[in-house]
Amino acid sequence: VSVQKVAVLGAGGWGMAIANLLSEKGYNIGLWEFDKTAADELESTRVLPSKLPGISLNDNIAVTNNLSAAVVGAEFICFVVPSQTLRATARKLLEIDLLKRPILINLAKGIEVGSLKRMSEVLAETIPLGSYSGIATLSGPSHAEEVSRGIPTAVVAASRDKEIGSAVMDLFRTRRFRVYTSDDILGVELAGSLKNIIALAAGMLDGLGLGDNTRGALLTRGLAEIVRMGKKLGADPITFSGLSGVGDLVTTCLSRHSRNRFVGEQIGLGQTLDEVLAKMSMVAEGVETTKSGYQLSRYHRVEMPITTQVYHVLFDGKSPAEAINDLMIRDPKPEDWS
Amino acid sequence: VSVQKVAVLGAGGWGMAIANLLSEKGYNIGLWEFDKTAADELESTRVLPSKLPGISLNDNIAVTNNLSAAVVGAEFICFVVPSQTLRATARKLLEIDLLKRPILINLAKGIEVGSLKRMSEVLAETIPLGSYSGIATLSGPSHAEEVSRGIPTAVVAASRDKEIGSAVMDLFRTRRFRVYTSDDILGVELAGSLKNIIALAAGMLDGLGLGDNTRGALLTRGLAEIVRMGKKLGADPITFSGLSGVGDLVTTCLSRHSRNRFVGEQIGLGQTLDEVLAKMSMVAEGVETTKSGYQLSRYHRVEMPITTQVYHVLFDGKSPAEAINDLMIRDPKPEDWS
Repeated sequence: VSVQKVAVLGAGGWGMAIANLLSEKGYNIGLWEFDKTAADELESTRVLPSKLPGISLNDNIAVTNNLSAAVVGAEFICFVVPSQTLRATARKLLEIDLLKRPILINLAKGIEVGSLKRMSEVLAETIPLGSYSGIATLSGPSHAEEVSRGIPTAVVAASRDKEIGSAVMDLFRTRRFRVYTSDDILGVELAGSLKNIIALAAGMLDGLGLGDNTRGALLTRGLAEIVRMGKKLGADPITFSGLSGVGDLVTTCLSRHSRNRFVGEQIGLGQTLDEVLAKMSMVAEGVETTKSGYQLSRYHRVEMPITTQVYHVLFDGKSPAEAINDLMIRDPKPEDWS
Repeated sequence: VSVQKVAVLGAGGWGMAIANLLSEKGYNIGLWEFDKTAADELESTRVLPSKLPGISLNDNIAVTNNLSAAVVGAEFICFVVPSQTLRATARKLLEIDLLKRPILINLAKGIEVGSLKRMSEVLAETIPLGSYSGIATLSGPSHAEEVSRGIPTAVVAASRDKEIGSAVMDLFRTRRFRVYTSDDILGVELAGSLKNIIALAAGMLDGLGLGDNTRGALLTRGLAEIVRMGKKLGADPITFSGLSGVGDLVTTCLSRHSRNRFVGEQIGLGQTLDEVLAKMSMVAEGVETTKSGYQLSRYHRVEMPITTQVYHVLFDGKSPAEAINDLMIRDPKPEDWS
């Protein structure tokens, strides 16, 4: 396919980084911003230091609050909005004739609270089948701050349809942005979402001043409970060892760029969730995902001890130190995954 | 089993930490040190600040250069010597009547250069079958500095014989040192060893000033090549997602305590391997394991691109920046594990 135009919905840090990456490949980009004032300002200033410091948008990116202007004629539509707003964003597309049956690419990492749907499921059930040609999710360790500075990054493009996955790989790949493919979109989406709960827990460890051994144990047992849930829902367990699983888990749990880790750290230092969130301008996806992860665990009766403890800390006022202690004194057992 | 005495062979930082951990459970410990002068000094001073700063050995630990004194009557013998010296250490036991058919526990992480044998294989082929009652390996993210300060840690005790694994779990477990069991000793030993090669590479990234995304990608693709080799050799792939795999990989690649990561970082900053090793008093297992990993990869024809690049940097004078570049420009492909 010769690509002319790509729509990027959501002009936060990741949306801007993706718009820049794609624009450097020569595509024209329609970058849609939900808020009219913010869209106008970004279109004229080309910078948003609070979300992506030090980076300017390239010339062939048109920032707009007009969704039709962004999406009409695009061969690809990238959804880079907060996960809990994806359904509302997708619904807005229903009124528009997209013209070109685009490939829809989800870049949000979350599970809808209440419905417990993954993002590609939300897209598939919102947008009529005939109006798009495929759905994919792009995921993996990819902090916007680093991608926009050209730091080597590797991600995975997942789609049940291998041709769609390959098309998305070709759309994004550069010498600095390596894209693998996967046909396990279920596993990729679960991994990318649930790992944010573990990142919150890792931040709590940091806030409590615990060490590298504890963090290694937490990441591993966190991965184990994500694998358990994944298997229950039909994912391929090995997906969780990949870029969207281990890779993103590691990066998120350790990076100073991670908002989820940051929220956990502040809570580990003694603040309440409300106090932390009141000071943040960006969304920490892990907070809502802790709700949906906890709901998934209960609904499917899959044991997720770390998710459960994070839930109690965030929403029931349990102290992080007590939560860690409760995790450590559980009965010993085989290192199982079932 | 009522345990009276445990032998710990090797009085480096990890040997001392293990001796202290076990002594606190009330066992008498024979701690064997290879070097007579060092043994005498440690027996009298009880401290070794160069290897385990701030920690004193407990009273019920007898440090000795006399191997018989350390092992005779012990129900468990822990091998905490550098992997390339394990065979020589095990051979010394042949002259001694152990009295109690102990369980042999390997705590070294490496693969013998040349023979390409794992540590439990070296023990099994050196020590006569009738003189011990089982072999296990203890592995996982467990920096000595943290274990000896009581920081929460989780590890895995692996043995083909479940009863032996459980006995080792019971030997070590405390409220601060959580022990899981596994019957995949092959996978556990491969994971613990090969991950040190990836830690060297992660250190190189640090030295080159690359970012979190790159590190996440490196760890993930490093894990993928370890899994590939593990599958070829008959390990259970899921073992590599466990404490001895992902857990130890993450901790080693990110910790300021890791000697392998440190060596890689110095090389990333422009030093040669010889220059770095000349300044170190402790063994960085990953250097020898890079040789055996590279040999394994060639012998079994299993693609291990990161191991291969680390080998070329360490032993063929290739620049780390060029090695990273060669990894990034490889042909794109599915995120596969076969």
